[in-house]
Amino acid sequence: MVRVGIINVTGYMGAEAARILHGHPEVELTSVTGRSEAGKPLGEVFPHLAPLNLQVEEELGDVDAIISALPHGASAERLQPYIESGMPVVDLSSDFRLKDVKQYERFRGPHPAPQLLDQAVFGIPELHRDELSKTKLVANAGCHAAAAILGLAPAVQAGLVDTDIVVDSKTGLSGAGRSLTLDSHFSEANESVSAYGFDGHYQQPEMTQELGALWEAPPPKIAFVPHLVPITRGILATAYAAPRDGANGTPTGKLRKLYQEFYADAPFVHVADAPPSTKQTVGSNHCLIYPTFDEDSGRYIIVSCLDNLGKGGAAGGVQCLNLMLGLPEIAGLESLALYP
Amino acid sequence: MVRVGIINVTGYMGAEAARILHGHPEVELTSVTGRSEAGKPLGEVFPHLAPLNLQVEEELGDVDAIISALPHGASAERLQPYIESGMPVVDLSSDFRLKDVKQYERFRGPHPAPQLLDQAVFGIPELHRDELSKTKLVANAGCHAAAAILGLAPAVQAGLVDTDIVVDSKTGLSGAGRSLTLDSHFSEANESVSAYGFDGHYQQPEMTQELGALWEAPPPKIAFVPHLVPITRGILATAYAAPRDGANGTPTGKLRKLYQEFYADAPFVHVADAPPSTKQTVGSNHCLIYPTFDEDSGRYIIVSCLDNLGKGGAAGGVQCLNLMLGLPEIAGLESLALYP
Amino acid sequence: MVRVGIINVTGYMGAEAARILHGHPEVELTSVTGRSEAGKPLGEVFPHLAPLNLQVEEELGDVDAIISALPHGASAERLQPYIESGMPVVDLSSDFRLKDVKQYERFRGPHPAPQLLDQAVFGIPELHRDELSKTKLVANAGCHAAAAILGLAPAVQAGLVDTDIVVDSKTGLSGAGRSLTLDSHFSEANESVSAYGFDGHYQQPEMTQELGALWEAPPPKIAFVPHLVPITRGILATAYAAPRDGANGTPTGKLRKLYQEFYADAPFVHVADAPPSTKQTVGSNHCLIYPTFDEDSGRYIIVSCLDNLGKGGAAGGVQCLNLMLGLPEIAGLESLALYP
Amino acid sequence: MVRVGIINVTGYMGAEAARILHGHPEVELTSVTGRSEAGKPLGEVFPHLAPLNLQVEEELGDVDAIISALPHGASAERLQPYIESGMPVVDLSSDFRLKDVKQYERFRGPHPAPQLLDQAVFGIPELHRDELSKTKLVANAGCHAAAAILGLAPAVQAGLVDTDIVVDSKTGLSGAGRSLTLDSHFSEANESVSAYGFDGHYQQPEMTQELGALWEAPPPKIAFVPHLVPITRGILATAYAAPRDGANGTPTGKLRKLYQEFYADAPFVHVADAPPSTKQTVGSNHCLIYPTFDEDSGRYIIVSCLDNLGKGGAAGGVQCLNLMLGLPEIAGLESLALYP
Repeated sequence: MVRVGIINVTGYMGAEAARILHGHPEVELTSVTGRSEAGKPLGEVFPHLAPLNLQVEEELGDVDAIISALPHGASAERLQPYIESGMPVVDLSSDFRLKDVKQYERFRGPHPAPQLLDQAVFGIPELHRDELSKTKLVANAGCHAAAAILGLAPAVQAGLVDTDIVVDSKTGLSGAGRSLTLDSHFSEANESVSAYGFDGHYQQPEMTQELGALWEAPPPKIAFVPHLVPITRGILATAYAAPRDGANGTPTGKLRKLYQEFYADAPFVHVADAPPSTKQTVGSNHCLIYPTFDEDSGRYIIVSCLDNLGKGGAAGGVQCLNLMLGLPEIAGLESLALYP
Repeated sequence: MVRVGIINVTGYMGAEAARILHGHPEVELTSVTGRSEAGKPLGEVFPHLAPLNLQVEEELGDVDAIISALPHGASAERLQPYIESGMPVVDLSSDFRLKDVKQYERFRGPHPAPQLLDQAVFGIPELHRDELSKTKLVANAGCHAAAAILGLAPAVQAGLVDTDIVVDSKTGLSGAGRSLTLDSHFSEANESVSAYGFDGHYQQPEMTQELGALWEAPPPKIAFVPHLVPITRGILATAYAAPRDGANGTPTGKLRKLYQEFYADAPFVHVADAPPSTKQTVGSNHCLIYPTFDEDSGRYIIVSCLDNLGKGGAAGGVQCLNLMLGLPEIAGLESLALYP
Repeated sequence: MVRVGIINVTGYMGAEAARILHGHPEVELTSVTGRSEAGKPLGEVFPHLAPLNLQVEEELGDVDAIISALPHGASAERLQPYIESGMPVVDLSSDFRLKDVKQYERFRGPHPAPQLLDQAVFGIPELHRDELSKTKLVANAGCHAAAAILGLAPAVQAGLVDTDIVVDSKTGLSGAGRSLTLDSHFSEANESVSAYGFDGHYQQPEMTQELGALWEAPPPKIAFVPHLVPITRGILATAYAAPRDGANGTPTGKLRKLYQEFYADAPFVHVADAPPSTKQTVGSNHCLIYPTFDEDSGRYIIVSCLDNLGKGGAAGGVQCLNLMLGLPEIAGLESLALYP
Repeated sequence: MVRVGIINVTGYMGAEAARILHGHPEVELTSVTGRSEAGKPLGEVFPHLAPLNLQVEEELGDVDAIISALPHGASAERLQPYIESGMPVVDLSSDFRLKDVKQYERFRGPHPAPQLLDQAVFGIPELHRDELSKTKLVANAGCHAAAAILGLAPAVQAGLVDTDIVVDSKTGLSGAGRSLTLDSHFSEANESVSAYGFDGHYQQPEMTQELGALWEAPPPKIAFVPHLVPITRGILATAYAAPRDGANGTPTGKLRKLYQEFYADAPFVHVADAPPSTKQTVGSNHCLIYPTFDEDSGRYIIVSCLDNLGKGGAAGGVQCLNLMLGLPEIAGLESLALYP
């Protein structure tokens, strides 16, 4: 058993990582930290995690690998010594995702450890399986980015779409974390839908970087608007793109085949037979994609959905951890979505 | 007092029209029909409408004007004799919305009374105030169409945007009506988001018709995807469009002024200071619009929201009724949104 | 027009009072306060209230009557000078509800103005209509208490029930206010039900006081447990009580008649024909009651429901204000519930 | 591997049983039936079950044990030949729960196979572990009954409580199944709470039977009211009972110890340190109990919660199946609740 520790188990992302590792056949969760709750039994902070019988600690104990669920900024700083010591690390924050440090700094200010960016691999196994098996530092994809990138990658790589892309994403509230804000106050968020991120959203450059790497063309110009919808878990991204250079569109049937081939070896990405719903992915590491070409408007319209704490978060992180540690890719991730 | 009757009061749209008319100072709701429930007190079907003290009837009694909340197809057929007799009618169905009967037939089959299409006025007072005051037949706008048209009209009329437009709309479940379907079954719809309408949606031609009439250019090519989100009331439409002919975009500040001027005389359409949420419009006839130009992607991104049973349905219909009957436009519509 | 001011308009209760007064035909809302937001337009704090065109002030302007939506403790302190000057006041907090100051102090510590308790009238018009029309100080009922008292009063006054009463109440999140807490964080509250108040709840003595005053018997012994359910507005209280002194129970039919007579003159309390749902009261001043005698268990089981911000809060407060000011009891309160 | 079949996999209870068996280390789900969907891939009916790679069949294939998720009435009829042939069967319906066939007939009409009632064991492992390991027919407990019985059993067995008991239960919509009804229509159920079952509820006799068997006293007289709350999964039951024969109550601290001892060997029942919420049990086989004595009202107030499809349904059924088959009690049931 590989001993794994979670830094900052006291947020939703950390707690979900703990929940998943509880069922992992080749990993043992042996240490969890969370400064504000240090000293308490984990079951006092999260009753559903009581069966793990762990104490929240100030600092990690002796472990073989680390998952960090710290917030952006804090994560890179805290992880730096571990990374430099060669410890395998999956970082669920955005700190190591962008190769271009200027993009990071636009949203977060100075990067605590820019010299480490080169060795980080962006945590989308479907695009970087080999690199993930060779690295010691995984920068897990953002939740919106994971949905959008998985939804668009086959079409982009095949050179079907134009560089002008719209990504309209709808996310549940758990993505906003456990910190209290008016936007996530029940009476404000419930029975309501709103858009946010009008000053730019830090996951847009993630999409640009990863999709841009799939073709020779100039990087895509992505108009990305995330929306808050009153669900706890789930992201559904709807992507719109015109055919490249005014070409005719590839009809839906042919497009679906292209997608099925692209994801033939991906155990967790499925081309859905009917428009999928986020509920079909809740609590799982599955991502459902529904690619279409709309003859009416002459646009590709591609829907993809996943659980933002699952494939778009902690479960996706465990998939990367498995690859990094040489374990079976699906270990600990086989449970099906909790439906309904 | 003008005596008004509602045909098919037993769906959500009809019930909402009844609720609004209860508070209307110049209209009296004197007759309501609903074949399946005919003979019952209205308060037995909808307890909240008990104070209206009305009986559901098979046929309308003697009235001065009619609101029809019948489903598509049934509405035109039932209304035809009333329309031909010169009775003022607001039709909340889609039967009289499209001037091009072929567009109607694409979604609904043969039109029951195509000869009446010419005299119908599309029920968006902000675009057709004068015509509405002169007609006897109002074809109330679809809920998605109302949000999208109000959100895009100022930019389209000013010739700012390209013909390629994306409208990504999110709607609550009440828009699907009171008929039982698996999609509107609580355990399926709750905690979930999904897209629908991939074979085309009948409100897309409504947008094309109304926006196309605002400029000389070829009609817009609108990629429209409606989404189901787990709220009861509310629509939020996010529209994306590039600047026309590769022009530079109009910056957000200037764009906002353009919108404010366009809606200066519209009592129910507001340019919001911050990204609005559907909850801010629930139960009201208000529509909130947030127009922006996104420098990053070089796109106009415009958010508009309203209550699909309110401004996008029964309340919007009462606004049209007021204009048609020569009553103050805001009569009966002054109540504020129920927040939170 | 009577000029009314609202103290602390920036919480949900104050905002709801403002929303209601906007539609009140004999009252004008002329001044609103809220220290943390003083100086801002009200529409910036609550966009749905923008049409009121008011500024949030530090101190009330010149008004003829006051509604206070301050929190418990702060309210009595702030209101004291107004009350002593003879200004008509409706206090939505719990500060003046209990005649026995010890009961207050058990939950809140020392009372800021115990000498004023005597002149306060408990704000349930169905029990205190005459007193309300003669007082200058209304202590509006608590939301759970309003539901339970209205549900039980007819049976208690008729001497039907035993002193041992169970009140199991289910409330939405708006009752917890706009202050941020983990319990009202969307991801925690959504899709969940829980009980609270195990150290005693301050509205239990309100029930004991008001129901105890309806009979000669010793005061009822009420086991009261409030529950949080994931809705924004609404309270449903289920009361269970054995017949008095081992008597046979009054059958449901006869019981319903007793209730109908008791509330014959109450414009907002209705004996429902079928088990009611909170949704049938949302946004209104209506209370629905469903009284039954369960032959199986030999218990009276009485369900009552209302909107905690409506009849159980701001709307109920406006009803009391009307009586206090000599206005028609129903003025400004005629709008029907927003359903669905 | 034991080969298990599920009859009627096409409802929520059957689908949840399938989901759980997918992760069961000693059981293989080899056959699933569902007459209306026979011939379709299971993944077409429930996309989240696609990884099971099963076809919905008309009749069960060759299996070693059966879980039936058929509705009441249909289940006994369909299971009779299997039971008579000695096949191990877990019936999730109510058909074999009540020993007194008259109680069954009161709610369901004539019983299809009353001669089999004697051999059925009521499926609450915490009360019937030994009998479950010796039977071939398990009648899985009702969801409300499971919560109430687990919550009350320790106090009843210890003779602490009076025979007059109130059980106020709150349930999510999945308990109502996948059949379409107005009560489970999203726009009706969402944002609403209501009580039901006023003509008697079939799970009340389950509570009476199981609790009555725990003491010598006359059977308890239970006033039981179930309530619908807008969540998908979860039941929270609040039980109220006076101390027996006017005795003093056992204080909360001592009561908790009694409960902890009672459930010392129960892997899935936990005495919670704080008032629990249904969300803490979603998707799991865990039940949380919070027993208190309320000095104020002199009543025991005991809260218990579980997932109605989990411990109160399919997961509880798998726990019984494990015992019946001689497998480890916790096999396949170790996953933690999906929180948040």
